[in-house]
Amino acid sequence: MEIVDEALNKAQVAFLSYKNFSGKKKATFLRAIADEIEASGKELVATAMRETNLPEARIINERGRTTGHCRMFADLVEEGSWVDARVDTALPDRLPAPKPDLRKKLVPVGPVVVFGAANFPLAYSTAGGDTVSALAAGCPVIVKAHPAHLETSTLVAAAIKKAVTKTGMPQDVFQHVQGEGFQIGQALVKHPFTKAVGFTGSLSGGKALFDLANQRPEPIPVFAEMSSINPVILLPETLARDAPKTAIMLAGSITLGVGQFCTNPGLIIAIDNEGLKSFISALANEIQKVVPGAMLHQGIAENYARRLTLTLAQKGVKVEAQSATQGNSTQGTALIASVAAETFIQNPALAEEVFGPFSLIVKCKDINELHAVVVKGHGQLTSTVVGDEAEIASYKALLNVLIEKAGRLIINGVPTGVEVCPSQMHGGPFPSTTDSRFTAVGADAIKRFARPVAFQNFPESLLPDELKTENPLGIWRMVNGELKK
Amino acid sequence: MEIVDEALNKAQVAFLSYKNFSGKKKATFLRAIADEIEASGKELVATAMRETNLPEARIINERGRTTGHCRMFADLVEEGSWVDARVDTALPDRLPAPKPDLRKKLVPVGPVVVFGAANFPLAYSTAGGDTVSALAAGCPVIVKAHPAHLETSTLVAAAIKKAVTKTGMPQDVFQHVQGEGFQIGQALVKHPFTKAVGFTGSLSGGKALFDLANQRPEPIPVFAEMSSINPVILLPETLARDAPKTAIMLAGSITLGVGQFCTNPGLIIAIDNEGLKSFISALANEIQKVVPGAMLHQGIAENYARRLTLTLAQKGVKVEAQSATQGNSTQGTALIASVAAETFIQNPALAEEVFGPFSLIVKCKDINELHAVVVKGHGQLTSTVVGDEAEIASYKALLNVLIEKAGRLIINGVPTGVEVCPSQMHGGPFPSTTDSRFTAVGADAIKRFARPVAFQNFPESLLPDELKTENPLGIWRMVNGELKK
Repeated sequence: MEIVDEALNKAQVAFLSYKNFSGKKKATFLRAIADEIEASGKELVATAMRETNLPEARIINERGRTTGHCRMFADLVEEGSWVDARVDTALPDRLPAPKPDLRKKLVPVGPVVVFGAANFPLAYSTAGGDTVSALAAGCPVIVKAHPAHLETSTLVAAAIKKAVTKTGMPQDVFQHVQGEGFQIGQALVKHPFTKAVGFTGSLSGGKALFDLANQRPEPIPVFAEMSSINPVILLPETLARDAPKTAIMLAGSITLGVGQFCTNPGLIIAIDNEGLKSFISALANEIQKVVPGAMLHQGIAENYARRLTLTLAQKGVKVEAQSATQGNSTQGTALIASVAAETFIQNPALAEEVFGPFSLIVKCKDINELHAVVVKGHGQLTSTVVGDEAEIASYKALLNVLIEKAGRLIINGVPTGVEVCPSQMHGGPFPSTTDSRFTAVGADAIKRFARPVAFQNFPESLLPDELKTENPLGIWRMVNGELKK
Repeated sequence: MEIVDEALNKAQVAFLSYKNFSGKKKATFLRAIADEIEASGKELVATAMRETNLPEARIINERGRTTGHCRMFADLVEEGSWVDARVDTALPDRLPAPKPDLRKKLVPVGPVVVFGAANFPLAYSTAGGDTVSALAAGCPVIVKAHPAHLETSTLVAAAIKKAVTKTGMPQDVFQHVQGEGFQIGQALVKHPFTKAVGFTGSLSGGKALFDLANQRPEPIPVFAEMSSINPVILLPETLARDAPKTAIMLAGSITLGVGQFCTNPGLIIAIDNEGLKSFISALANEIQKVVPGAMLHQGIAENYARRLTLTLAQKGVKVEAQSATQGNSTQGTALIASVAAETFIQNPALAEEVFGPFSLIVKCKDINELHAVVVKGHGQLTSTVVGDEAEIASYKALLNVLIEKAGRLIINGVPTGVEVCPSQMHGGPFPSTTDSRFTAVGADAIKRFARPVAFQNFPESLLPDELKTENPLGIWRMVNGELKK
């Protein structure tokens, strides 16, 4: 495909210079992206609102998150220690063999292709965490614009291109391509110059790209964030005491943003007793009050309705409550249902994601059955436990399994809300992502687009600055086994 | 397959306790493995010599490397900072939204299957770097014994099992399975409890396991170290001066251990001039003197003969020299050949690995053609440049491309000899390995078998020790953005 070949050839040329830019220089660029996005002002906000049906406050908040991660990655690469530098100096007289001088640091992998998310037109799209962390690492980026918010994407791309020009970056360090259908996306992933892929979206879409990338003559990594139902486990003693409070907290999380978050709590697991009854009753009360909101686009609304109908048609699933106001075909009606644990365990369809304001309550006969539900579970972005400290402490075996199933564990909170900070792990075992070893949010997201290279017996003048003996950049390094600046 | 299902079920049970063992406790175990391997004494050395045809000094050296990495990983996990701990404390009053308490560290991935290497019966096999780094991370290991050195593998497995008993580890934290053919290996990789695979061997073998692992319902990572021809670039000015010295250095590396190293220099690239002529003449002189040695086993000797014949039959390939003494069918005859760069670039078969004491010299018309050969090259474990500082400095564009092609760059040295230290990167772009982001040798090899998990809003009592506020283990952590102990 000519357009793709041209884009990747340009990206590769840009890569061969951009990869050698200092952290300071890249930081200027990333900060300029933030500035230009802010300078896009009301037009960007209005366009994103129109294309996604998301309210102004949310778009403004998302814009802040986007400019925030641009500046965070700018700080990270300017400081410079992210390259994991290691220096082991030579021991020429060592016996039986001399030890060579060996030093190592991370280097960028090469051109990266990014597919933005429908549900985050700014923070996970054109200047989203994938794009900005790849640029920070030193990789050129080609964004395949999401067709659901093409104008927003084009505005953000224009802002990035202004930043490219203003800060003297290679012109093709960022490219924006459009096109309906899968062909362009597939060609981008298959091109030999593409070295990694970022994707946020459906399980089928992410898995298809993952398979395509692995079938290349040279397989490349795909970081796809895909499908997660984010189980919430309610411990019985605490629930007996706090059912209404817990219900209010969870109702807010289930219906936030019309349930269109990858961290939406789609599964609630609890022991079936009086506490659960009063919880369901309180949750039902909250859900009924929810006024259906417009979903991101028609396709997502249709998909939600279809998946919901499918789920509710499964044997043993009982609707517990829904929005009192019936939504139209573009809106998402909040709904909660319940099912017996035994039925849930037997029917894998019930563990599939229903993307929207829906949650399924799994009623367990006892702790053994609850444990069985958890053991049976897929990989998730998050798992949550609601219970007081003493009660959780008595469920150590449960926590011990839960940690195998998710990238982030939350106690007495909700999974929605993904803080951007070094401790964040937004990722998890398959099918929540295709690579549980990396996060899509927070400083460590940069590690997805870098690989280590060792330099043996290099004279000082040929070493990268990060590895020169006198440490001219003043970064943290492991020198002969000791971490120091 | 019953035997595999039983092994993985046992490994999973062992995992649920072993993963929570402290670094100190795991260190005792790893050191005991080293002690027990040493206690296996002469029997182990004699058995390995008999099964691999490797000389005593080499086996003793390899044993030292094996016990060395057991103790290195023991030190690493006892010290504890390898878990990359990050602590971000809560800001409950932050606006517009409170910041939660979030902490993160690496946790082990689960049971790991290891396929040992034919060419390293100790250091890359049963207690090799894959096994020991996985055990250090907290993962149970199932080793599929290499049929070429089954008795050696069984002796080492017995040593590990003694260490398991002596240090009170779960009995099934290490298992040793045998079996001819591919069936058992495939079943091990496909089992749902298997979470990662380590492999050292051929491209076809590694790629088959990689494909199998990616086709699982839950794909898992395969760390396969496969195929590398480790190009050596000889810069013209330096070569004109140092041809004989360079030839002696490279002859030693090409024929070391009958050429049976993954870092064997199989490709020499240089500009065709008088310097190269005198280099080839000096190298030919060295190669003729080499007495053919017994290869690891009959299959490897046959494969070397077959691949060599194939390569020499390619158009334009000229034999420059071979061992004056002709080897028998179990021995590897050292041989060097040459080809014009133009021909090399056009024929991908010439870039395939010939595992044994062979190297192909690629003669380039000029620096542009040399550059073209490098650009065209596959991923490699190593790339080497021979040239003095000033001359290399005038080839910056070449180095800029070279770094994209290998995990380790060497100046004025040989690629054979892989130092075990934090700076080591034994890995590289495909097809040298299946994952260029990780090393198989050195402390960072442990990262292959771990994934990050974030803990949000956890009370102190429920946090892992590495993440408790008072830092009871005294490890390096990033606390609110600052690296400290």
